[in-house]
Parts: sequence; structure tokens; C-alpha cells
Amino acid sequence: MEELVGLREGSSGDPVTLQELWGPCPRIRRGIRDGLEWLKQKLFRVGEDWYFLMTLGVLMALISYAMNFAIGRVIRAHKWLYREIGDSHLLRYLSWTVYPVALVSFSSGFSQSITPFSGGSGIPELKTILSGVVLEDYLDIKNFGAKVVGLSCTLAAGSTIFLGKVGPFVHLSVMIAAYLGCVRTKTIGEPGNKSKQNEMLVAGAAVGVATVFAAPFSGVLFSIEVMSSHFSVWDYWRGFFAATCGAFTFRLLSVFNSEEETITCLFKTSFPVDIPYDLPEIFFFVALGAICGVLSCAYLFCQRTFLGFTKTNWFFSKLLATSKPLYSALAALVLASITYPPGVGRFIASRLSMGEHLDSLFDNNSWALMTRNSSPPWPKEPDPQNLWLEWYHPRFTIFGTLAFFLVMKFWMLILATTIPIPAGYFMPIFVFGAATGRLLGEALSVAFPEGIVAGGVTNPIVPGAYALAGAAAFSGAVTHTISTALLAFELTGQIVHALPVLMAVLAANAIAQSCQPSFYDGTIIVKKLPYLPWIRGRKIGSHRVTVEHFMNRTITTLAKDTPLEEVVKVVTSTDMADYPLVESTESQILVGIVARAQLVQALQAESPSWAPGHQRCLQDILAGGCPTAPVTLQLSPETSLHQAHHLFELLNLQLLFVTSRGRAVGSVSWAEMKKAISNLTNPPAPK
Amino acid sequence: MEELVGLREGSSGDPVTLQELWGPCPRIRRGIRDGLEWLKQKLFRVGEDWYFLMTLGVLMALISYAMNFAIGRVIRAHKWLYREIGDSHLLRYLSWTVYPVALVSFSSGFSQSITPFSGGSGIPELKTILSGVVLEDYLDIKNFGAKVVGLSCTLAAGSTIFLGKVGPFVHLSVMIAAYLGCVRTKTIGEPGNKSKQNEMLVAGAAVGVATVFAAPFSGVLFSIEVMSSHFSVWDYWRGFFAATCGAFTFRLLSVFNSEEETITCLFKTSFPVDIPYDLPEIFFFVALGAICGVLSCAYLFCQRTFLGFTKTNWFFSKLLATSKPLYSALAALVLASITYPPGVGRFIASRLSMGEHLDSLFDNNSWALMTRNSSPPWPKEPDPQNLWLEWYHPRFTIFGTLAFFLVMKFWMLILATTIPIPAGYFMPIFVFGAATGRLLGEALSVAFPEGIVAGGVTNPIVPGAYALAGAAAFSGAVTHTISTALLAFELTGQIVHALPVLMAVLAANAIAQSCQPSFYDGTIIVKKLPYLPWIRGRKIGSHRVTVEHFMNRTITTLAKDTPLEEVVKVVTSTDMADYPLVESTESQILVGIVARAQLVQALQAESPSWAPGHQRCLQDILAGGCPTAPVTLQLSPETSLHQAHHLFELLNLQLLFVTSRGRAVGSVSWAEMKKAISNLTNPPAPK
Repeated sequence: MEELVGLREGSSGDPVTLQELWGPCPRIRRGIRDGLEWLKQKLFRVGEDWYFLMTLGVLMALISYAMNFAIGRVIRAHKWLYREIGDSHLLRYLSWTVYPVALVSFSSGFSQSITPFSGGSGIPELKTILSGVVLEDYLDIKNFGAKVVGLSCTLAAGSTIFLGKVGPFVHLSVMIAAYLGCVRTKTIGEPGNKSKQNEMLVAGAAVGVATVFAAPFSGVLFSIEVMSSHFSVWDYWRGFFAATCGAFTFRLLSVFNSEEETITCLFKTSFPVDIPYDLPEIFFFVALGAICGVLSCAYLFCQRTFLGFTKTNWFFSKLLATSKPLYSALAALVLASITYPPGVGRFIASRLSMGEHLDSLFDNNSWALMTRNSSPPWPKEPDPQNLWLEWYHPRFTIFGTLAFFLVMKFWMLILATTIPIPAGYFMPIFVFGAATGRLLGEALSVAFPEGIVAGGVTNPIVPGAYALAGAAAFSGAVTHTISTALLAFELTGQIVHALPVLMAVLAANAIAQSCQPSFYDGTIIVKKLPYLPWIRGRKIGSHRVTVEHFMNRTITTLAKDTPLEEVVKVVTSTDMADYPLVESTESQILVGIVARAQLVQALQAESPSWAPGHQRCLQDILAGGCPTAPVTLQLSPETSLHQAHHLFELLNLQLLFVTSRGRAVGSVSWAEMKKAISNLTNPPAPK
Repeated sequence: MEELVGLREGSSGDPVTLQELWGPCPRIRRGIRDGLEWLKQKLFRVGEDWYFLMTLGVLMALISYAMNFAIGRVIRAHKWLYREIGDSHLLRYLSWTVYPVALVSFSSGFSQSITPFSGGSGIPELKTILSGVVLEDYLDIKNFGAKVVGLSCTLAAGSTIFLGKVGPFVHLSVMIAAYLGCVRTKTIGEPGNKSKQNEMLVAGAAVGVATVFAAPFSGVLFSIEVMSSHFSVWDYWRGFFAATCGAFTFRLLSVFNSEEETITCLFKTSFPVDIPYDLPEIFFFVALGAICGVLSCAYLFCQRTFLGFTKTNWFFSKLLATSKPLYSALAALVLASITYPPGVGRFIASRLSMGEHLDSLFDNNSWALMTRNSSPPWPKEPDPQNLWLEWYHPRFTIFGTLAFFLVMKFWMLILATTIPIPAGYFMPIFVFGAATGRLLGEALSVAFPEGIVAGGVTNPIVPGAYALAGAAAFSGAVTHTISTALLAFELTGQIVHALPVLMAVLAANAIAQSCQPSFYDGTIIVKKLPYLPWIRGRKIGSHRVTVEHFMNRTITTLAKDTPLEEVVKVVTSTDMADYPLVESTESQILVGIVARAQLVQALQAESPSWAPGHQRCLQDILAGGCPTAPVTLQLSPETSLHQAHHLFELLNLQLLFVTSRGRAVGSVSWAEMKKAISNLTNPPAPK
């Protein structure tokens, strides 16, 4: 009976094969099979992209962890060497300096020999790529090796060189994302699509940040703020998914390797939860933000100036052009000599790694109060339980070392950023900000040793909280982002200081954004990469300026009836990438776009068959197979600057043609936009 | 000497007045005055917008706090009444039920009598407004009073009605933002600009969420995710600024009112920091996410179905159309009767307010383990130190009450959402999710009473963490957002569970988003508000479909040489808001857009002067002063669906004309886009 029902059901739907009838319960088996099929389809439908995003996250986490692991071993070897080499100062000095010098010059030489643009953080270039510019080979998987090896060497040089990992890691992640995008296109077989590829790159950037800090939230937000001016919620969700996979795998690996007992944050703090800070302290937090803002302006200005100086000064530019490893070695030697622990390094806590710097700066207790009546000795080795002892000097006191640290690191960091090696500049800035905050926090804890009294209750001041706020505010101001506040919380696992830290970051950003371009924008300007400046919201004038006022009116159009000789002349005399194709020389009605490259190819293929007597025109070549692209979007002369800027930014465009009543009358590209925007700020002098 | 120098300096720059020379140190005084002038200019330059954003934040915080304060008093009075009325069951029952019934029916009657669309959360309507649709009067400041009074009454009814504050508060905030925007336009005197206004509204939405939860980060992100499909980093910064001002003021007020000692989070938790959870627990967190995802699908489906039912069923629709207060009173009576504490309310912890629900559900300890061997009595009043006792029943056990709570609240919540009063639906969903998570957490703590052993260390399971994850996952799934995870951290002040909670939210979202539209989208669909469906990233087909395939080809153009009789005929026979203006009937070259309203006006003004013999045409009217708008953006037939959709979404457009070689050949509006997108999902049957 059961089987009969199965048969009948089968006959109404798909035919039941005889084979199916032989086994027991054909109906149930069919049901299960259909269910599995449905689940498979469902998963695969959701899949497509998700699988690639997951792969991206897991892969980057593996690379990040493996890199950390290898670097840790190298640093441990260096420490061992320094410890065991004996008490001779010369030997100790040599063992301290030769190591980073060798690593940095190798890093510089190796990476530069493979690709000339592997130096620096890579984020400015990525920003340019994500805004639609094609930088040839920059995301090629070939550069991957150069960047990985170079970055590992840089990081293995440790806190001597004082450089970080985020920037190049974002670059690596985007490279992998671009590669996975290609793989996806090939496996699925759909045509390569620019917006699809961009989606993958954006997710890659988020994964890069998230796998370095194990912080998915701030990974996504930081990459958004740094990379783009607009964002789609769809990309944001994809970013979250990939970043979570990456951060989870990254922390999972350290559990598997028995470094941690379970998945936790990187820099655990134990700030008091019930009353983390008193109301009047808010004022000091905001003041700290303002200080960090001013400091960041000074830093950005000096950094950009010095970077420009190394490019224009004949000595530096010659050295950098001909022998990069030599320059790197020299700079590394200077940095390593200063950080030599028995020398100046004693006063800048140079025996600590950058992670230990942060760990110690986020400490709850007030060092100034602890060392008021006692004077703990300088340990032979940094004591993992009392890392803060490195910051203490009996005569200099805590304040002296912290201030000296800030002064020295200020120019050392600027020097380090000019070394042509793959390196990130976020982490050093974060540590610098933490030290600034700590200095203020310690000062406050001395000024109010009993804590600030409010509402009858006294609570001791926690200098670590100021370090946290300082780190977030300074790094936020330098990079022009707000999500560094969130990063600080994700790194420490506590969010009790949400409001004061956020206010400090906002104050710092208000100052920095109104005075200086961000670190990454500054690099874009110095490196002369193409960029589209943005219109500040208050520039209401941008609504009144229309395309008519600033478009490029001298465009070269190709009409279908243009004689071939004329076409050849145009192609050889101009260097536009695309030519607007118009109906006829007379009407100038825009009908399409011809790419220069394809036109040249078609012209070359055609040229032998030119009969001298017969007057051939462009129409013949087009009919002969030269492809034209349709005009999918066109501006009108009445479009406002604001609207045009919006379009360029949102759709990652670089050139649009302007038509009036169908006639091609001009074109607008980044160059014209830039000029129009700068005219908004500085109106042209009346003639 | 000093004065001479001052004089000389003065003469080289601005002239020094004699008055200035009389006082001491003219140079220093000038310097100070110039400095102050510079600072004033600088601040005012930064100002413009910032002042308005700050005002918005502070104002909303004041309103939010005042509302909370008033509601707290009303609820306290209700509690006092219920306590003091004696032991008679009838009197107690009446005092329990009459109060909310009266409040809800007053809320419904009052708000509906002022504006018919003040019911519900308002977020769906705001979403529509932010996508560019003009909903008349919806943001009018007149509705403000109706919404404030209505919402206060709703909230004063307490956990009996079990509705929240977020949605209407976002609406209130956006109203204030719109009003401030108008004020700004008037004071500065710049012309009203749509994109400027939109910026203000977006910030308003962020402030609304932030001032309810005192959570600036999630306020900004939640409002972005719910409201828009794209956002600009510029808006995001402005949102952060306004939200921080709002959240800070909101918490500051409670410190000033001595409710808190300092600024802290709303629902403080004390989860263990060192080892908050064990690695294998990640699996249960993700499973919890999946459970919440499935539950949310069921909830969304039932909610939408029931909402549709009340609109189609003759009894409900008649009741709702004629006497909304009666319907509200009936529904409130049902809800209040069920929550009567000595009755069924005993099993659903109905004596707790919604905040106390959350406070108790986020508790660290396992209630199941605590009540294993002892059976604490039911206190006469909820004990603030042991709120969890409300959840315990000797025979039902913790599991019984939690499960019963979920079952009852499921349909009670759906019933409550149909009451036409201003009310938010986010908070109840958040509590529901927390209870779901708590149930799983308690079950796990009983299953593994020693904690999960991993790596030789055993850690007790914290059911509160599951409640946190459940709340974030369920509310995230219902609203299709991820930032609820961040909200959970900001509310509790701890972010140690960052990864597991985020993974739970992602799992829940994956299920909910692939099966059901979000709560707000569902309401948009049921309320038949205009909306533009979005193209899922995987629908690669959208790149192949071009505007040519789906545009509306039957557009009515007005040519400059159209006779006036013809124009009148067109205007009276069609109802488009804008007509494309073409050069001549023959050429059809698009030159501008004429608004119907203005055309009608011009025609009416013109009509008396019509001379019978003289054939007048549209050209004359245009010359006579009827304004035409320029075409700032036009589509080509070759533009892909994807690109067109992008444009509509990004620029908040509703209609674009399509031109081919300058000729107006069609138009694309939301209607055509919707049809084209639905054809992508379900290809039209071949004819």
C-alpha cells in the first residue's frame, strides 16, 4: 500500500524510476532526498559569494598567525643573543644594532628588487584603486611574496624600528581578495564585472584590519572610513562576515597553540566597572582629545614635510634612487643606536615590544603614586608581571621618561616612515597616543591623589583609561577616523569608557580634520597619486556651480563620416583613452565611445587595404569590427558640481561626457573637478 | 618706543585708530583681538552645522530624559495603587487592568485625533522618506505633540503592554531635525536644498536611537542599517557627533538627578573577564543564533499575516476604522488580564518592567543550579537585589516559566503591534531574544554543571552571556541588522563576548534575510508605502538587462511648438507630475522638464488673453514666465538595470528620462524598476 501511494505520488510529479521502487519506503527516501537537494541548493545559493568571503577570512588569519609566529621566534632569538653575548658593551651594542640593520636592509632590498612599489603601507594606493583608478600590477599576486617577506623582516626588527603591520596586511588581504575574485569569475564562468570585483576588494580591506587586531567591528568600520567616502550596507554586511571569520580563526589558532586558554581580546585590561571615572574627568578626556588633535597636526605636517624633503633634497633623493638598502640600513642604524637599552634606550622603555608597550600603558595603577616613596630597581630583564618598571627611572621619574619617549619617538617615527620597506604606520601612532594619554593620566593622578571627589564619593583616577583615550584620539586624528575608539574597546575587551573616549576622538578629529589632510591623504598628495578631493558639506556654493562652468570644452570628437586620414591624425596627435563618437561632424550627436587602443588596432589592421583613390571614413572601420561602447551615463551642462561630484564618487567614475540636446559639448574628468573644487575654496582672482 | 612700533606695524597693515593708541600696549591688545577674531571665525566656520547637530542631540536627550522621568512617576503611582488597594482580588485586578486600558485608549484616541498616521513605530515611513519620497506632513512639527503624549501614555502602561520607545523616538528626533533644518535655512538664508535636508534627517535618526539607549556607536550604525542602503562617511561622522552629544547629555541628566554616581551604561553586567567562555561554547552560540533566526522568521511571518488579517477581516477592519480607542482598549484589556500577577502573570514574570527583565536575564549565575536544592519563596514585592526570583516557580521551574514566557509573549507581542498607538517594537523583541538565549543558557548550565572542560580548565557556563547573544541575534534577525551586537555591548559595558555574539547575529541574519523581509520592510509592504526593492548581489543578471528592456516607452512629451489646445488636452488627460519638454514635435530632442503644477498655473493665467484667431503654442507660455527645470541627469537605453538601480538608490531619485541621441525615448520610475527586478527573480513566462 505504502509503495502504491509512493508510485501514485511519483506519477503525478516526476516519474519514479523502477530502481526506486525496489528499496523500502520509497516515499520517505524521496522526501529525504528532495530535502537534501533543497538544502544543497539553498546553501549553494547563499554560498557563491559567502564561500569566497569565508576563504578570504580564514586564509588571511592563517597568514597573519603564521607571520606572528615566525616573527616571535626571530625576536626571541634576538633577545637570547643579546642576553647571552656577555657584558662587553661593544658586543652588546653590536648584537643590538646589527640585527635590525640587517633585517631592514634585507627587507628593503628584497621587496624593492621584486616590485618597486612594495614600500610603505599600501593603504593610499588601495584608496586610489577603490575610487576607480587602475594602478597596473599593484594587486598582482606576484607582489605577494615580496610584501610578505619584507613585512616579516620589518616586524622582526621589533620595537627598535617601531613599525606596525596593519597597512601592508590590508594590502596583502586585498591582493588575496583580488585573486579570489579572479578564481570566482573563472569557476562560475560569469563575465568579469567591475562592481563585483570592487565588492571583494572592500571585504578584503576589512579582513586585513580584522585579522591583525582580532577586531571585526572596528576592522570593518576603520576600512570604510579610511578607504571610501561612500558605502553600501550590502558591502558592510559582507565585510562583517569575512572579518568575523578572519578574527575568529586568528584567535582560534592561538588557542590551539596553547597561547591562550580561550578566545579573548589582545590587550586585556581590568578597569573598574562600577565607577570607571568621575564626571569632572570628562573635561580632561576632552582636553586630552584636543591635545592629541594638535599633536597630530604637528606630526602630520612634519611627516609630510620631511617626506617631501627626502624627495627633493639631492642627497636623499639620490641615495633613495640608487641604493635603497643603504639608506634603510643607515636609518635603521640611527634608530637602533638610540634605542640601545644601556644608553638612551633606558629612558624610552626600548626593551619592550610594541605589544608590551600597550600592555604596560593600559595598566590600572598610577605609577607616579607607586614610586612616590619607593624606588624600585631596574630589572635585568623586563619582568612580564611588572612591565611598567621599564618606564621608571629614579632620577628622571615617570614623567621624564614618558615625555622623553614622546619627544624622541616623534622624530624617530618620522624618520622610520621614510624607510622604503613594507611597513604599517598605524600601530606606532596608536602607541604614541597611548603614551601621551598616560602622561596626562599620571599627572592627574598626582594632582588629585585621592581621586576626584564628586557627589561625596572619591574614586582614584585610572591613568590607563587616559592612555586608552589618548591612543584612540591620536590614531583617530592622524588617520581622520572615529572607529579607532571602537578598536580601543575591542582590543581591551572593556567598553565602560565609551563616552569619554568617543568625545576625545571627536575633539581630536575636529582639530585634525580642519587643519591637515589625513596621513593617507597626505601620502597620496606627496606620492602624486590621482585623487578626487571632497567637497566639505558646508560648501553650499557647490550647488550653484554647474558643469557648464568648469567642463572641458575642447574635446576631440570622432564623427562617423570623418575620413580615415583625419582619424589617424587625431589618434596620433592626442592621447585620450576614449574618444566620443558622434553621428556626423555637423550634428555632433553623441552615439557611443571608442577606446583609443581598439581604434589603433583596427586602423593598423585596415591600413594595408587602403585604396588610394577611394575616400574611406570611420564608419567603414566601425562596420569592420572595431567595437564601440554605449554611453550609459551623460551629464548635462546644468548638472551642479555637487551632483557631478556625487556621481563620480558614488559610481567610481573618472570621465563623463557632457551632452546638450544630444550634442557632445564637453567632458568632465577628475582634473576639471579638482580645479572647480579648489576654485570653491579660493575663488579665482578677478581679471 | 613700544607704542611707536605698534604704530609702524599698524600703518603697514590696517590703520591704527587714535583710540587704540591711548591705551597701554596697543600691539599686544591688537594681537589678542586679532587672535580672538581668528578663533571666532574658525569656530563659526566649523560651527554652522555643528551647532545645529549639537542642539539636536541635547534637545532630544532632554526630551528623552523628561519622558523617562514622567513615565517613571506614573508607573510608581500604579505600583503604589496596586500595593495599597488591599487584598481583594477584584479590586487588585481592576487596579491592575484599568490603568493600562485607560492609558492605551487615551494614547490611541489622542494621537489618532491629531494625526491619522501617528500610530506604529514610524521607522518604515522614515525609510520611505529618506529614499526620496515626499510623505506630506509626516515630519511636520505639529505631530510632535501627538506623538510625545501618545508615546508617554503607551510607555506608562509599562510591561503589561510590553512595547518600547525606539521607533517613535527616532520619528520625534527626525521631526526635530527637519524643524532645525528649516530654522537653519532661514537663519543662514541659503536656499532650501534637498541633500542638505537629508543630511540633517540622517543625523536625526542616529540621535533618536542614541538617546534612548545612551549608545552612540550602535545608534549611528543601527540607524544606517535600518534606514538606508548606502551611506556617506560624511553623514556617518555627523551622526557620531550628534549621537555623542545626545547620549552624553542623556546620561549626564541622570547623574545630575542623583540616579547614578557617574556616567555608566544602562544595564551593567559583570561577566568574568579572564575566561568569559570556553571554546566549545562557540558552537552553542552559533546554534542559538540559528534558533533565533528560525524564530524570527516565524515571528515575522505571523506578525505580517496577522497585520494583514486585521486589515482584511471585516470585523477588525470596521472596528479599526470607526473606533480605534475601543479596539485599543479591548486589546489592552486582554494583555493586562493575562499579565495579572496572581494569575497567569505569575508565570511570565509580569511584575518586572522591561528594563528589569533585561537586568535579570543578563544575570551571571545559573538560576537552575541555584534552585536545584532550595526553593526560594515568591517575594511579596520584586526584590531589586534578586529580580530573578520573579522567574522562578517551584513547580514550573525556571525552564517552565521561561518557555511559557516565550510562548505567551510571542502572540501577545503580535497582538500589541496591531494596536494603533505610537510605540516601538524593538525593545520587546530584544527582551524576547534575551529570554530565548537565557533558556538555552540555563539548559546548558544544567547539562554541564561543572562547566565545559577545555584544555584542562573548567569554567562554569554563564547563562547571562547566552541571554546577551540571544537578544542581539533575535533583534538583529527581526530588523535585518548586525549592529544589535554592538548595542548589546554598549548597553552592558562589556565586550568580552564580541566574537560569539557577532557569530550568533550573523547566523541569525543569514537565516532571516534569506527567508523573510525585515520587520520594517514587512510593514512597508503591508502599509503599501512606495519602496524600491533591492537587487541582491548575486543577481548578476541585473548587469545584462538594460534600460531599453524595461523603460516606459509611452511617455507624453510636450514640444515647444505644441498648440496650447493640445497642451491643455495633455494636462487634463494625464496625471504625471513632470512633463519632458522637447525642442519640437518632430525632433523630440529633450531640453528640459516642466512641472505640471506650474504649467497649469501658467495656462490658467494665460487663458483670458487667448485670441481666437491667433494660434498660440507652448513656446509662448514658456516665454511668458512658466519656469522649466534643466535635465541634470539622463539615462541611455544602454544603461544596465544594475547601474540604473544604483543611481536611483544613491541619488534618491524617483524618475529619470531616457534619451537616445538626444531624443526623449522613455522614462524609468520605481514602478518600472520594481517590475524589472521582480522579472529577474521570476523570469516572465514565455508567450
